[in-house]
This record gives sequence, structure tokens and C-alpha cells, in this order.
Amino acid sequence: MAGPLYEKRITHINSTLYGGGVVEILNDLVIMMNELGIDTEWQQIKGTPDFFTTTKIIHNALQGAKKGLSKNRKNIYLDVNRRNSIYNHLEDTDCVIIHDPQPLPIIKYYNKRQPWIWRCHIDITNRNPRVWRFLKGFINDYDAMIVSMDKYKQVVDLPQHIIQPSINPFNDKNKELNEEEIEYYLHKYNIETDKPIISQISRFDNWKDPIGVINSFKMIKKKFDCRLVLLGNMAQDDPEGQEIYSNLMSYVENENDIIVSTAESSILVNALQRFSKVVIQKSIREGFALTVSEALWKGTPVVGGNVGGIPLQVLEGKTGFLVNSVEECAERTLKILKDPQLGIAMGEAGKEHVKNNFLMTRQLVDYIKLIKQYVINYKVN
Amino acid sequence: MAGPLYEKRITHINSTLYGGGVVEILNDLVIMMNELGIDTEWQQIKGTPDFFTTTKIIHNALQGAKKGLSKNRKNIYLDVNRRNSIYNHLEDTDCVIIHDPQPLPIIKYYNKRQPWIWRCHIDITNRNPRVWRFLKGFINDYDAMIVSMDKYKQVVDLPQHIIQPSINPFNDKNKELNEEEIEYYLHKYNIETDKPIISQISRFDNWKDPIGVINSFKMIKKKFDCRLVLLGNMAQDDPEGQEIYSNLMSYVENENDIIVSTAESSILVNALQRFSKVVIQKSIREGFALTVSEALWKGTPVVGGNVGGIPLQVLEGKTGFLVNSVEECAERTLKILKDPQLGIAMGEAGKEHVKNNFLMTRQLVDYIKLIKQYVINYKVN
Repeated sequence: MAGPLYEKRITHINSTLYGGGVVEILNDLVIMMNELGIDTEWQQIKGTPDFFTTTKIIHNALQGAKKGLSKNRKNIYLDVNRRNSIYNHLEDTDCVIIHDPQPLPIIKYYNKRQPWIWRCHIDITNRNPRVWRFLKGFINDYDAMIVSMDKYKQVVDLPQHIIQPSINPFNDKNKELNEEEIEYYLHKYNIETDKPIISQISRFDNWKDPIGVINSFKMIKKKFDCRLVLLGNMAQDDPEGQEIYSNLMSYVENENDIIVSTAESSILVNALQRFSKVVIQKSIREGFALTVSEALWKGTPVVGGNVGGIPLQVLEGKTGFLVNSVEECAERTLKILKDPQLGIAMGEAGKEHVKNNFLMTRQLVDYIKLIKQYVINYKVN
Repeated sequence: MAGPLYEKRITHINSTLYGGGVVEILNDLVIMMNELGIDTEWQQIKGTPDFFTTTKIIHNALQGAKKGLSKNRKNIYLDVNRRNSIYNHLEDTDCVIIHDPQPLPIIKYYNKRQPWIWRCHIDITNRNPRVWRFLKGFINDYDAMIVSMDKYKQVVDLPQHIIQPSINPFNDKNKELNEEEIEYYLHKYNIETDKPIISQISRFDNWKDPIGVINSFKMIKKKFDCRLVLLGNMAQDDPEGQEIYSNLMSYVENENDIIVSTAESSILVNALQRFSKVVIQKSIREGFALTVSEALWKGTPVVGGNVGGIPLQVLEGKTGFLVNSVEECAERTLKILKDPQLGIAMGEAGKEHVKNNFLMTRQLVDYIKLIKQYVINYKVN
């Protein structure tokens, strides 16, 4: 499949700061494309603190925040992109793929000789219309746009494609662990394994509804003895997270069987997803929620909120259950806990579903097909 | 001069984190080289937190710290470089310039087709011999090495060149400011301008001897009414700096005419260097101390410690004074304060000295000469 792209040069450009997920994807994607003989390079634009403040405003605005861009902010945004167009030489590149809004306007500063594709990793359904209008002036210069889900497609004057995100089955978060290793890592981070565990692994964010998860757990607890683990890392630049975390800690003060952990360890996530009887992702709003695919990949059924990308991963009654309330969450989780055979069957179906749809090899194929479509027979205007 | 390099491709590679000075230099150098028709690109290697912890150990070891590298740390260092060799394509590049130790070993992972130059920005006179021996295995693969001063030259099996650092006269830290602007920025950051000011602008670090500066000031104060401003930003990852800063604050508690500021503003540095009657740089150990050139460029005489790169900038009795003690520092500073004509003459000589030696145009010329020497007639082995 990659044959026609042999020795073609493809350049991915993203920016540092914000968007660890994008970096995770490029880490693997770029290496795999090279292994297929496609000369794929990965460049990053260099910004100033002012620039990153500006692009965070843009990021938030795309997710629905009202705050817009001052004229000064727009100038900073454009000036950094202009400078970076001097640092990054693209004369010999056959296709440029720009990730997210930070390097979006850089296209203005090149003498375009190849197809350019904008890859937007953000949920833009509730975008701020004024900021969107400003960005559209750059988006329309591209040959195509990639979004993660059908409902993120926008009214822009260019072809739009969907590439769903994916997980890497070989990295620390997802690689195989044997039972001994699972126990080792759980104990290392003070998670006892003497009772069945249910867990939610998510940032401490109200949109992930951790309080709802705890309330569900209290209902479950009356009928089935188990533990709840809430595991989430704390973004250093997220004061909101700190507050939610403290509230949570006082809310669970007298609960013996609830463990709240902020340990930052990929391998702990892995062990916890493997050990859990059910993984919960009770979100009220979501981008894509790859944590669901991560859990399913380990043969663990998922009870998830019926939002964002979760229904694409949780197939109702097959790989888990979709829920809309605390009561439903408790009831469905209990159903799996009480019926181990059901849990195992759902886990197996889940793993198969992820294998067919959410592994990085599928994403690689999507990118190759898309790039071929634009690179082969491209004619400079 | 740049003619023979027309449309040659030159690639600079550094790494993010640590070394704001390198980024400042590349910001300007890369743009100027492009303006001369040299296709110069700037790439950065992408690391993990573990990688940056490792390269910080290397950085400290090069400056003399005893701590070495475990086998595991060496593996992390090499593995990140190996991965980045896949992300960065150098097939079409005519010369590769690697900055500092972070991307140093990347050379191992390329099929070398062009001259490679290692640019070391660090003071390596007191290097840790074991870490140095490990790095030498990579350094010896290069065609040449650049250091900042003659005394940093090392026993390695390759040609070594000196390129002194330089300042950009047009950026916020150095651009022209009129008197109104100078007053505006000083007042904005709560620095009164009713008395003559002497200042030291430096990180809060014992090697910069801030306590010595304060003790000198106390002597000066008895004979000449003036203020002392200590301005230094606090690196977030520097717990030592925090401690020194607190000690300093309690040391000056009852001193009305000493202002200690941690404001992070390039334009404040600019205004303060311009307003000061004398800039002090009473370091006990120094890399190069470009703050000296910054002050001289503004026509302000400098009283500096007789260490590192300071004697290259402070010409004794001509652009300022070199001092070896608190008493000497007080006496020499007082001499300039009491003789305004001397201060003006030294400032003029200092500006001329910087113009001839420490502006980025001189650095640009050095790079072009050096690159030409290696690129023209290069033959692949």
C-alpha cells in the first residue's frame, strides 16, 4: 500500500507544549512511516511564552470558550509563524501535515509547492464563531482537513476526512503484563488487590464526573464488596484540577474502599486497567476518550457515558454499557461484577473491537491512503 | 563572503529546555543566514522527562559536578537520540551543526554525508573526566568543534575553533530607548529614579556573589548617595536560586536604598542598564557573561570580576575595571561615580568595543567562515 509513496518526503509539523496526545501519536506514526520507506520528518515550531498563551486562548475558543483574540495577540500568533517559516525549509517536501492550530497560519508564509493537510485534534463542535472565522482564513488555503469524528466536520471550503485516533499496543501504557507484574505495580503505588477493583482513569475534571462515579460506587458497595480506584494525573498548569482534587479528597475522607491516586505512571495505568473488573468512564462530555480503547484492549469491559467518542468504542451490551445517569452506571457495573462470564465475554469482544479499529496500524493505513490521494499526481498551481 | 554557500543547506540542531541563550542565538543567526541566501534550517530534538533529567546531569558534569551517568541513563540518552535520527532527515543537508550535549550522539545514527560540527556553549574547563570520556566517543566522530573561549579548548582528535557569543542590538533587551521610555519602564517595575543607580543583573547564584555586591554597596553608600538594584530572574527549576533569594531578602531587610527585583522583563533589563551609572558583574566564576556586553553596548561602564569571559569585555581602565575583592569593587565603582566624565568616556569606549567584537554580525561572519571551510570541497569518505 505504501509503495507509491516510496522515498516521498512527508513533513509533520506540530508545536511543543499542550497536546501530549499529539506528541504520543507522532512518536509512533513517524517511525512507522519511515519503516515503510516513506521519508517522513517531524518538525516543531518554536514559540515564545506570549505565543503559547495566545494559542491556548485559541485552543479554548475552539472548545467553546467565549474569550477571543486581541489584535496584538493575532500579531504575535502570525509573527511566530512567520519566523518559523524561515527556520523550517519545505522546498523538497512532497506533503505537509500541520497538527492543531498553533502552526496553522504558517502556510501563508510559504510558496506552496505541495499538498498541505490540516489535522485538527480538537473537538470543534462548540467553537467560538469569531475565532473560527479568523482561523478559516488560513484553513481555506489547505488542500484538505482531517478531524477525529464525523460530527466535528465543519463548513469549510475544502475536503474533510475522518481519522480516528488510536493506541500503541507496545508502549508502557498498553504492553502485555503478566499477573505478577500487575500485582507488583499496583502494590508499588499502594493499591491493595485483596478485593475486586473498579476504576476510572481520567484527569480530575468535572466533565469526567468523578463525584458521579463515587455516588455510583456507594450504591454498588451495598450489594457487592469491592474497591474503587480513581487515578488521574494533575496537569501542573490546571488550577481547576487542584481544586477538584481537594474537593474529591474531602468527599471520600471516610470511605475505606475508595483510593484516589495522582501517581504519574503509564505502567500503573496499564496494570490498573488489566486488574479492574470494570473500567468506568462516566464522562458528561468527551473528545474521543482513548482511555476506553486502552481498557478494552486489555480485555476489561467499560461502562461509559453516552458522549463524544465513547459510543464508537463501547458497543452497548457487547463491549460494555453506555449510561446516562449515576443509577444506570451503578446498575450496569453491578451487572458485570455479578456475572463474571459476562465480563469476560465483553472483554474479549472489546479487545477484538479495538484490534480492528483503534490500533495505530489502522491509523497508519488511514494516513497512507489519505496522503496518497493528495500526493500522487499533485500539480503545483 | 556568503556567496559560495548560496543555496547550500545548513542544519542547526539543538534541544528544547535548558539553554535559553542558545535559543536566543539561533533565533537571530538562522534568520540572518537565510537572508544571505544560505538555506539554513533549525531543528530540535524531542525528549522525554527522563531524557532531560539525564542531559541536565551531563550539563552539570561538564561544569564540574561529580555525579556521573548510570548505564540506564546512558541508554535513555542514546535511545532518544536514535529515535530523533528517524524524525530528522538530513540526506539533503550540506552541513550539520549540533548545539550542546543533548543531541551530540545523534551523529552515530546517520549515514554521514556532510561535515558535522559540534558547538559546545558550556564552560568545560572543570569537566567531570568520566562523563567527558563517554562523550568523547561521539565528539570524535565530528569534523570540528566550536567553543566560546581559548581556555575551553580540549584534547580531542579534531580541529577546534573559537566563536565568541554575541548580542542582538535590535531585540527588546538591547534596542534603543529614549529617556522617557527608560523612566517609564523603571517606574513600572517600582524602581525609583531620584538617585543615581548602580546595578547587578544576574541570576541569584552564589557564583555571582550578590552578597559581595551588597557589601561593596554599603561601603560606597558612606561616600556617595545612590541606590543599588539587584535584578535577576528565578529559574523555576532552580531550588538553589529560591534559597539564595530568601537569604538575600533578609540580608537587605533594613536597607532603604537596595532594590531586589525578580521581574522577568527584557525591556526592564534594557532600561536599567541604560539608567545605571555603573553596572557591576562581580562574579567569582563565569561562562562568558554577555550581560557585560549588554551594559557596555548602552554606554554604561562595567566593574566586573576578573574571571571567565569578563576580561575580554571589560578592558581594564578603558571600558571599566576588573576587580578581585569587595573593597576593590567599592573603590572602583566609587571612582566612576565621582568622576562622571570618566564614566562617559568608559561607556563610549565600551560601546565601541562591543560594536567591534560582540555583535551578532561578527558571530554571523565567524560562522560563515567556518562553515565555508568545511563545506566547500567536502568529500564523503
